[in-house]
Amino acid sequence: MTPEYFIRKVIVSAQENVRRGGGPFAALVVHHGEILALGTNRVTTDNDPTAHAEIVAIREACRQLGHFQLTGCDLYTSCEPCPMCLGAIYWARPARVFYAATRYEAARAGFDDAFIYEELTRPGPERRIPLIHVPDETAWMPFQAWLDHPDRKPY
Amino acid sequence: MTPEYFIRKVIVSAQENVRRGGGPFAALVVHHGEILALGTNRVTTDNDPTAHAEIVAIREACRQLGHFQLTGCDLYTSCEPCPMCLGAIYWARPARVFYAATRYEAARAGFDDAFIYEELTRPGPERRIPLIHVPDETAWMPFQAWLDHPDRKPY
Repeated sequence: MTPEYFIRKVIVSAQENVRRGGGPFAALVVHHGEILALGTNRVTTDNDPTAHAEIVAIREACRQLGHFQLTGCDLYTSCEPCPMCLGAIYWARPARVFYAATRYEAARAGFDDAFIYEELTRPGPERRIPLIHVPDETAWMPFQAWLDHPDRKPY
Repeated sequence: MTPEYFIRKVIVSAQENVRRGGGPFAALVVHHGEILALGTNRVTTDNDPTAHAEIVAIREACRQLGHFQLTGCDLYTSCEPCPMCLGAIYWARPARVFYAATRYEAARAGFDDAFIYEELTRPGPERRIPLIHVPDETAWMPFQAWLDHPDRKPY
């Protein structure tokens, strides 16, 4: 199976998802040449702003594997991941990510991920959604509890 | 209720979460001065790399509201959001975000979000997890189906 095979498959799923009332996005997690999970965009159908295709596919693949890492897996997505999904990819750590449409094509269809990419580079208080630091003398305590915990499971 | 009140509350939840085997993070969604949802980090307990406190809180709050947007809500988090969670915040669009610990404190406890922030600024093929563009002549078709769909629901 070539990357082109899975890419074409994920594009078809993205197109089908529109007919089912979802957004025009799909993602696949492939493990040893087999499809482990298919995710499609369910933001409006599930009232879940985090239900992008990649997130749905990552969660389902981890459920299948019984682990919180996608070691050795490849992720195929119909469109270049947005910052949220790219962050999720870094936490899930698949081997490689393949995508078809670019963020510029997504923008032409009204999905302006580029705006979020820009916002991420701005200082917190200057962002469209203000990010406000509230210093608190107890802020370190959860981390101290973590470091002191004998059975902590790093991820 | 002041931001300090909710910040202190979310720090306590983060610390308690460590005792329950989760990561040292918690988040609250507040709507008209009332707590709508509490999220705690469940990455290792649920085998879900996307189950950061903010994501869990956003999903639960949207479920409560029956909508995919957090218009008029504030998000409180025990620690500065990672890029994944910041992306999720932009898609959920709360009014404001308040946080206690900084990303530098998180790094001292072994949570290296700064690495992900850096990776996001690099070109795809130069990243630690390679992001590979596979151009395909059908890549635009899901977007065309979306634009042609009479009942599409923008988000």
